[in-house]
Amino acid sequence: MPRPRLRDLGIQIGTMPIGQYNAITDVPGIRVGHTTIITDSPHTVRTGVTVILPRREPIWENHAFAGFYALNGNGDFTGTHWLEESGLLTTPIALTNTHQVGLVRDALVAYEIERNPNDNGTLPVVAETHDGWLNDIDSFSLRREHVFQAVNNAHDGVSEGNVGGGTGTICFDFKGGIGTASRLVDTPSGHYTLGVLVQTNFGDRPRLRIDGVAVGRALDFSRVPSPWAVRPPGGSVIVILATNAPMLPGQCKRLAQRATIGLAATGCVGHNGSGDLFLAFSTGNDLPAYELSHYALKMLPQTQMDSFFEAAVEAVEEAVLNSLTAAETMIGYQGRVAHALPIDDVRRIMRG
Amino acid sequence: MPRPRLRDLGIQIGTMPIGQYNAITDVPGIRVGHTTIITDSPHTVRTGVTVILPRREPIWENHAFAGFYALNGNGDFTGTHWLEESGLLTTPIALTNTHQVGLVRDALVAYEIERNPNDNGTLPVVAETHDGWLNDIDSFSLRREHVFQAVNNAHDGVSEGNVGGGTGTICFDFKGGIGTASRLVDTPSGHYTLGVLVQTNFGDRPRLRIDGVAVGRALDFSRVPSPWAVRPPGGSVIVILATNAPMLPGQCKRLAQRATIGLAATGCVGHNGSGDLFLAFSTGNDLPAYELSHYALKMLPQTQMDSFFEAAVEAVEEAVLNSLTAAETMIGYQGRVAHALPIDDVRRIMRG
Amino acid sequence: MPRPRLRDLGIQIGTMPIGQYNAITDVPGIRVGHTTIITDSPHTVRTGVTVILPRREPIWENHAFAGFYALNGNGDFTGTHWLEESGLLTTPIALTNTHQVGLVRDALVAYEIERNPNDNGTLPVVAETHDGWLNDIDSFSLRREHVFQAVNNAHDGVSEGNVGGGTGTICFDFKGGIGTASRLVDTPSGHYTLGVLVQTNFGDRPRLRIDGVAVGRALDFSRVPSPWAVRPPGGSVIVILATNAPMLPGQCKRLAQRATIGLAATGCVGHNGSGDLFLAFSTGNDLPAYELSHYALKMLPQTQMDSFFEAAVEAVEEAVLNSLTAAETMIGYQGRVAHALPIDDVRRIMRG
Amino acid sequence: MPRPRLRDLGIQIGTMPIGQYNAITDVPGIRVGHTTIITDSPHTVRTGVTVILPRREPIWENHAFAGFYALNGNGDFTGTHWLEESGLLTTPIALTNTHQVGLVRDALVAYEIERNPNDNGTLPVVAETHDGWLNDIDSFSLRREHVFQAVNNAHDGVSEGNVGGGTGTICFDFKGGIGTASRLVDTPSGHYTLGVLVQTNFGDRPRLRIDGVAVGRALDFSRVPSPWAVRPPGGSVIVILATNAPMLPGQCKRLAQRATIGLAATGCVGHNGSGDLFLAFSTGNDLPAYELSHYALKMLPQTQMDSFFEAAVEAVEEAVLNSLTAAETMIGYQGRVAHALPIDDVRRIMRG
Repeated sequence: MPRPRLRDLGIQIGTMPIGQYNAITDVPGIRVGHTTIITDSPHTVRTGVTVILPRREPIWENHAFAGFYALNGNGDFTGTHWLEESGLLTTPIALTNTHQVGLVRDALVAYEIERNPNDNGTLPVVAETHDGWLNDIDSFSLRREHVFQAVNNAHDGVSEGNVGGGTGTICFDFKGGIGTASRLVDTPSGHYTLGVLVQTNFGDRPRLRIDGVAVGRALDFSRVPSPWAVRPPGGSVIVILATNAPMLPGQCKRLAQRATIGLAATGCVGHNGSGDLFLAFSTGNDLPAYELSHYALKMLPQTQMDSFFEAAVEAVEEAVLNSLTAAETMIGYQGRVAHALPIDDVRRIMRG
Repeated sequence: MPRPRLRDLGIQIGTMPIGQYNAITDVPGIRVGHTTIITDSPHTVRTGVTVILPRREPIWENHAFAGFYALNGNGDFTGTHWLEESGLLTTPIALTNTHQVGLVRDALVAYEIERNPNDNGTLPVVAETHDGWLNDIDSFSLRREHVFQAVNNAHDGVSEGNVGGGTGTICFDFKGGIGTASRLVDTPSGHYTLGVLVQTNFGDRPRLRIDGVAVGRALDFSRVPSPWAVRPPGGSVIVILATNAPMLPGQCKRLAQRATIGLAATGCVGHNGSGDLFLAFSTGNDLPAYELSHYALKMLPQTQMDSFFEAAVEAVEEAVLNSLTAAETMIGYQGRVAHALPIDDVRRIMRG
Repeated sequence: MPRPRLRDLGIQIGTMPIGQYNAITDVPGIRVGHTTIITDSPHTVRTGVTVILPRREPIWENHAFAGFYALNGNGDFTGTHWLEESGLLTTPIALTNTHQVGLVRDALVAYEIERNPNDNGTLPVVAETHDGWLNDIDSFSLRREHVFQAVNNAHDGVSEGNVGGGTGTICFDFKGGIGTASRLVDTPSGHYTLGVLVQTNFGDRPRLRIDGVAVGRALDFSRVPSPWAVRPPGGSVIVILATNAPMLPGQCKRLAQRATIGLAATGCVGHNGSGDLFLAFSTGNDLPAYELSHYALKMLPQTQMDSFFEAAVEAVEEAVLNSLTAAETMIGYQGRVAHALPIDDVRRIMRG
Repeated sequence: MPRPRLRDLGIQIGTMPIGQYNAITDVPGIRVGHTTIITDSPHTVRTGVTVILPRREPIWENHAFAGFYALNGNGDFTGTHWLEESGLLTTPIALTNTHQVGLVRDALVAYEIERNPNDNGTLPVVAETHDGWLNDIDSFSLRREHVFQAVNNAHDGVSEGNVGGGTGTICFDFKGGIGTASRLVDTPSGHYTLGVLVQTNFGDRPRLRIDGVAVGRALDFSRVPSPWAVRPPGGSVIVILATNAPMLPGQCKRLAQRATIGLAATGCVGHNGSGDLFLAFSTGNDLPAYELSHYALKMLPQTQMDSFFEAAVEAVEEAVLNSLTAAETMIGYQGRVAHALPIDDVRRIMRG
């Protein structure tokens, strides 16, 4: 029986309408691909890579405005120096494990240089969380081909839970993973979609809240033990936000900053050991890479940002919770177990 | 009958112990003074100034490490360029209204140059929120003497609600004002106090939450009407965090950044029209202004920041709610009314 | 006999063509006004205020994109939090002395609220340098009317030297003041102008260079003594850059950052005691304050920024040197003397 | 005959004394290792990796305070998110080519996890410049072993020119590479050393200046042709600054920011296509990775930073010029030639 999404439990975060799949791919043109690696020999591997393609056409031919924000920088996210300098997203986005950010980054270089004759030093955007509790991370098991496969797999709709970069992650001491959500935003300048994708690897169980309810305090730990023998000091969460509203780079950054508020609702504190790194991009303007004269742009007035801020807060909270409801119990490296969020208990607690 | 504090309602935010007065002045050496101006002629004035003295001795003789963070910069906060460059708080902190940030800032210059023979271009740290709905802000009614009076008034313990810079503010469509709270933090490096003071002028009533409960949705609006004829686009909140733990400037900045998470718990989104500006400082090291050789410092290891992050999240949430429970209904400019948070209704809703 | 501009000495900085007046007002629509206060009783006052009006129409009705950069933040510059958050310049820019930044800022509030019925908390942009060696800065001699007068005086063309906010400043141990310069920039997207205005109050004489030549080392100090009895620890320089090229906020910030390179050419190090604060804005897009739908914008491709970077480097160097060649010897507070740059000596040294 | 260093030409930058080797390794404890790869088959490889070991003991056992600054972010520099969040340098620093930043970064992970039992997600600090004109960069020729070799090679003293990460770089249209310099700084708090290492891959020849002299304009291009058939849009420069003065993270950042001023003296504009990324660290405090209580630190007062700023400006200028004087003419990919800076011509021009 497939695991439910949060809304299947009758729990609705916020008040705004959702897109067709309640996924980041509801933003037109965005596709997501995962490569999931689960093997038990020669190494116990529980890892993978998730790739987000921001546009239907190659992003190196038609850039997108973007902004970055770090709630807590205990993690890596390559390519952000140029992204922040130029305000441009110029490569696909990938999410993976901590030890192989480099491999994935160079693989995206290799992928592009075969296809983009104008390449002149592409700077891929790759983030990571540490899956070393369930995954034998020191085996460095990802290969260039796994990255290519994720790119080539990309399609509409997003698998959640134990997939891609979220294959081996742990969230609020339950099995975490990939989650997604979306919101429809109606403004004086038009109807737009905002989508979110998260890779969740953070949180202390007693802090877990769902729509304000202190679920983490109410859960019976004896029935669903913590995965840890010795709790590691950190945990991380990567948040990617996307919209087709015409936002400038600074507006994307403002949007990214609001991920903190959605995460806060789930119980996130931004702990010292955590890499809580957020990137937002807008496909609302076309930015051909080799424009000769100037760009003609649209810009959402700043006064219309509030609806997007509210949408981001709702969608980030829901995406995190979707990663928890979707993820299944996993047995990993050295026989360690990360239990799935016990859906029935949650249902009961939420009923009050 | 005096208005209660949140804890008087039997509501406790988080799990950490509080300081003696549950106030920013629980951090040793910190004092707070208010000047509150409520007059009906020649102008309807509902404004004031709040001053925080960071140390028992003048802060220009013994600086404090500090850090600044803007969740949303739609406001002013003077003196932050040097504070961010040097990591030093070198002047008292003042909070006031939007139109007279300048007056208060120059008044603090005047105050210091009379007392500090070594003054060489003091750059006072002054923040603001816009109280123009209840206060005839265009009357520019604050005078230099009001600022001096607030400095001279400073003492242990903090009055809350309609006082000082919070005299005329509005929060979640109720009367807001000044609020405060504190937490005791126990770490391997020692026992410390963290204190918070807020000036609250933000929030949409339906978003108000108290300890996760959606109080704003449950309140009966017909009994406690909104203050607005036409809702203004913004609202702001200033958060000052202080601790005697020995934090470096970057650690103060990290602490300030966590104010967002405490505000998020109350229903803050960081709207476009809002000036959500936070400053944190540490008195845990002595930094004499005219050190000739070098400073000998203590530094809290980064791995011990988590308890302070959690304390900040708890104390910020509680300080905002204290500003609401303390503030009394106010009639102001052009007869406008901002109602106090209805305590009995809150009590009922929180009981579930 | 009027003091020359640098070009009158046959010295040309860089290779790019200049605008009609080699001034910031060469950028269409920009006007500059000074109020200069030189009195000997009751106080020895050598100060003033300079106002830049960014557009022909009120800037609060038609905003401009802008960006800010601090090389060294030992100074104040109000209004930058909103400017950085929104990317928008929404008020006139004023330059004045350190102790009365607040007065000037509140005066611009007063000026706007009389004229802008939609005002909702204007946050004026005001910078300062410390003129306390020649000016009795503790006399707080500026009044609101002086600010209004500078606004009302604003016109095409810029007086340089001992005027406005630069009345009492000192630069490379000579008399400094206001300087300006401009460059014409030819790009695939059109012909544009870049203009610079500086208020110079920084620099150690031995470091002074003109077009690479170490003039400061070659000058005979005995003939032109230093103004200082005891050298103060700092000194500051404010740089305002403007262009009619259609730059986004992030591009304005990049442009502002290049002021460092132009200053470096004159001998600036960005000393600890210095407030080296730079603001760039673009009038190349119209941004009506109350846009209902969305803005239609032009954007210069990032690949065309280089010509503007080079123009900024040239114009900043020249504007600083213009402030020196224009400023006349001044006798000020307590009989202190700041000598003018000795033009004949410079001419001789530059000839080699 | 070996190529000279700048001082061998009788040219001295600035006035401050230099360390024993006029190299970054003059800062006690710092070692530098290069792996240089020059092969003609199967690929024309002209690349390498340079590693800086910040302390005698492993940096993951004893961290160093550090700060980062981007003049122009068109490049990558991994690991900066945690470096900026924590203020800590926790890994060796490596410099390499653009396409294999990832390989080098993951190799440093592998290197550390074999040696550091407490590793918990190391985030290596690796920067790049694009050597694709002389190097067949798409051959991805670096291997993990090359990185290990550079680490193991590290020693006192620094080879300059066509070595390590600078093997294939081009600077001011001449052959660039690795350069280094140092300065001794005398302050009230003690005697310290400041060292700089640069990897130079930037600059347009006509802009080249040496100690203010416009050498680039005076050079005869016909005798030393430019390397380019089609000039690429960018170029980059990485600057690493180090000192044993006890600086806090914010002070390191301030120091890094001054690299711009030293680069400006050579003719750098911070062009759009350039990755101009600077990192400064201080070994002046011991920061054991697993401190249980608190750190006892020294801190240089901010008022003593000026000498270090001046030292940084001098040493950065000289290090860039040393990279040029040391580098030899190189023939690379597709027979392209980058000529060495013609020393005799420079000598002649500098004599005036």
